[in-house]
Amino acid sequence: MNAIHVGLLGLGTVGSGVVQIIENHQDKLMHQVGCPVKVKKILVKNTEKARQIEVDKNILTTEVFDVIHDPEIDVIIEVMGGIEETKTHLLEALKAGKHVVTANKDLMAIYGTELLSVATENGCDLFYEASVAGGIPIIRSLVDGLASDRITKMMGIVNGTTNFILTKMSKFGSPYDAVLKEAQDLGYAESDPTADVEGLDAARKMSILARLGFSMNVDLDDVRVKGISSVTDDDINYSKRLGYTMKLIGIAEEEDGKVEVSVEPTLLPEAHPLASVNDEFNAVYVYGEAVGETMFYGPGAGSLPTATSIVSDLVAVMKNMRLNVTGQSALAPQYKKQIKSLENIYAQQFLRIHVKDEVGAFSNITSLFTEKGVSFEKILQLPLKNENLAEIVIVTHKASQHDFEEILQKLNDLEVVHQVKSTYRVEGNGLV
Amino acid sequence: MNAIHVGLLGLGTVGSGVVQIIENHQDKLMHQVGCPVKVKKILVKNTEKARQIEVDKNILTTEVFDVIHDPEIDVIIEVMGGIEETKTHLLEALKAGKHVVTANKDLMAIYGTELLSVATENGCDLFYEASVAGGIPIIRSLVDGLASDRITKMMGIVNGTTNFILTKMSKFGSPYDAVLKEAQDLGYAESDPTADVEGLDAARKMSILARLGFSMNVDLDDVRVKGISSVTDDDINYSKRLGYTMKLIGIAEEEDGKVEVSVEPTLLPEAHPLASVNDEFNAVYVYGEAVGETMFYGPGAGSLPTATSIVSDLVAVMKNMRLNVTGQSALAPQYKKQIKSLENIYAQQFLRIHVKDEVGAFSNITSLFTEKGVSFEKILQLPLKNENLAEIVIVTHKASQHDFEEILQKLNDLEVVHQVKSTYRVEGNGLV
Repeated sequence: MNAIHVGLLGLGTVGSGVVQIIENHQDKLMHQVGCPVKVKKILVKNTEKARQIEVDKNILTTEVFDVIHDPEIDVIIEVMGGIEETKTHLLEALKAGKHVVTANKDLMAIYGTELLSVATENGCDLFYEASVAGGIPIIRSLVDGLASDRITKMMGIVNGTTNFILTKMSKFGSPYDAVLKEAQDLGYAESDPTADVEGLDAARKMSILARLGFSMNVDLDDVRVKGISSVTDDDINYSKRLGYTMKLIGIAEEEDGKVEVSVEPTLLPEAHPLASVNDEFNAVYVYGEAVGETMFYGPGAGSLPTATSIVSDLVAVMKNMRLNVTGQSALAPQYKKQIKSLENIYAQQFLRIHVKDEVGAFSNITSLFTEKGVSFEKILQLPLKNENLAEIVIVTHKASQHDFEEILQKLNDLEVVHQVKSTYRVEGNGLV
Repeated sequence: MNAIHVGLLGLGTVGSGVVQIIENHQDKLMHQVGCPVKVKKILVKNTEKARQIEVDKNILTTEVFDVIHDPEIDVIIEVMGGIEETKTHLLEALKAGKHVVTANKDLMAIYGTELLSVATENGCDLFYEASVAGGIPIIRSLVDGLASDRITKMMGIVNGTTNFILTKMSKFGSPYDAVLKEAQDLGYAESDPTADVEGLDAARKMSILARLGFSMNVDLDDVRVKGISSVTDDDINYSKRLGYTMKLIGIAEEEDGKVEVSVEPTLLPEAHPLASVNDEFNAVYVYGEAVGETMFYGPGAGSLPTATSIVSDLVAVMKNMRLNVTGQSALAPQYKKQIKSLENIYAQQFLRIHVKDEVGAFSNITSLFTEKGVSFEKILQLPLKNENLAEIVIVTHKASQHDFEEILQKLNDLEVVHQVKSTYRVEGNGLV
């Protein structure tokens, strides 16, 4: 049986992991696929650089065309990162009939629809399991489950950096800046942490999940995003007092054909399974109409989990090749994209407000909520030290995002309100 | 394209769910598999009985051979339960070249090896995803993951009834008997709850997981089992005081080619992800050498989750049929079975002892541990009301099961020891 030949774009830690797994598991791969697998060429920046793993120097190249146009190569594994240039290379590879496995969430979030449709046109597989929560087989589970169930909601902790930061803030009561610094020192956060802490990375992953789960062309622009950089230790302490844990939660929800996709710091009841997902771990909660609640938990990143996930995709491609059924990985979107308006997004809200400590202050505030028909689930009022102010913390019952934003604006205009310190969405009360 | 024909053995709630999913998802199934699926015959006890779903009476039969020897039927779905007779039927079906999908854990735990090997001999698929934790794709994830990783440990909450009982005991401080009664009234426990509460059901599932994860012919007899019927509310209260949650945990662990498989009430640190799996939910924690810790969480039973899982298996069989690659679902065990001796099973232990409240009592006890080189992580001593006794609770550092049992015997013989009230394994401190 002829070997299947693989070309790698990139040989960083993930790429090296892929090469090692393929070498160390030759027997098992052979058992699963029925033929040998061989890494034929690897694109690197510098062929002379010292590397952690031993690689035959003859298979290294600095020329991308040596890899994507090698007639013997069947599958391209992309682990070089980047967006525009990488997209050009992968389009070219797909048009040349190469199957593609990628871990590149940025690329898939922005150009996923285009790449998947070019793959289908050319009868090629394009798999991207490792792009969302590398260590969890969430994408495969969604695809498998979709055949016999309808997914109505997904809630995910899909960014390890922000989960690490919020876990530490919550555990030690430390302020955001100090924990971010610690995360950077430990290598859990990048020196420019913007994409993580502002929620962009999570938004990319949620758009990929939403597109797949709801079979709609959800774009990154459709995701409402709020990061964690303005979360204070006070916010976390007050939410703890009311029995909540703060997490950066991505939500993708479908109702009557309309979807909401968002990423924002969210309060969950302590008993919610996502509330105990700590440190750099990821988890995705999926609600299926038939199966009910399921959750997948695991490492979100890390070179070995990501490499393992890529090799699983490679195995899937190789099986399809041997069965002559490639080119079906991209199911064309079944439904027209419809994004929910703010009037139709309902959630509970947590607000922390500083008010002037005077008679009637509270009733001034509550009347704004009453006008909109929004009632309260929890209220906590405390005097503030050294100031003629009181702190009021409110958790509302469900309100539409639109009404809530109107209330917020009016609150800011109230004479008795010194400052609206913070607001957070509250999720996970009740079944979903 | 010719339709694939399915025969059902059984039409209870799960069977009815399967029929409904197949009917309601014809389009999606067609999209995934490329041909229609049709339920051709269904074995029932009484063709005239009123049913929750509408079924054409002409496809009902009371004669099993009408189903398994129908030449048009390609796949048999077994949802009738039972062991000996069902095994005979399925062997006959496999020999007649029918593929089989079953949710029957009792059958798979006892005769899985034989059935899988007959399936392979006859080029047939035999899938059983729904037999362990119906709503979680744990078996598929193990099979997929195994290609590129090595599983070293699995820890599972795989029985919903006992998890429901322990959750209620823990939450409300209620005694075992009262909660069991409540579970029976709610339909979460059977009128004869033995198989659940004595751990047999969980043991069956763990033997299936161990056989697959470690590629060894692990039998039900190889599983050490202890149920929850002797767990008291005192045990739960003391373990809570020390920061633990009690769960019925199945453990399957491999080390140097030797495995341990056990089911017993176990204490987990409250922060452990399995500790927050409550009520009737199931979860399986898997440790892979490359991927690290992952967890799958979901409903363990229920007719819709189980039916969904069966249809996923059916889809897998149908794909294999169309690709002409059936008969490979049963990987022959790669390794010779080796079960760890008690000398090689190490764990932390929790003990609760009533001792006579006299000088030297505690040092008498500790010296027994010191002789075996076992040290303590936590100690709690409290006087007991109305008695000349004290209560001592100890959590040891890791000790071999063999040494621990010797210590226990000697403790019982000590003059100062009134009674060893209970002992529990402690897991999940540290990474694993």
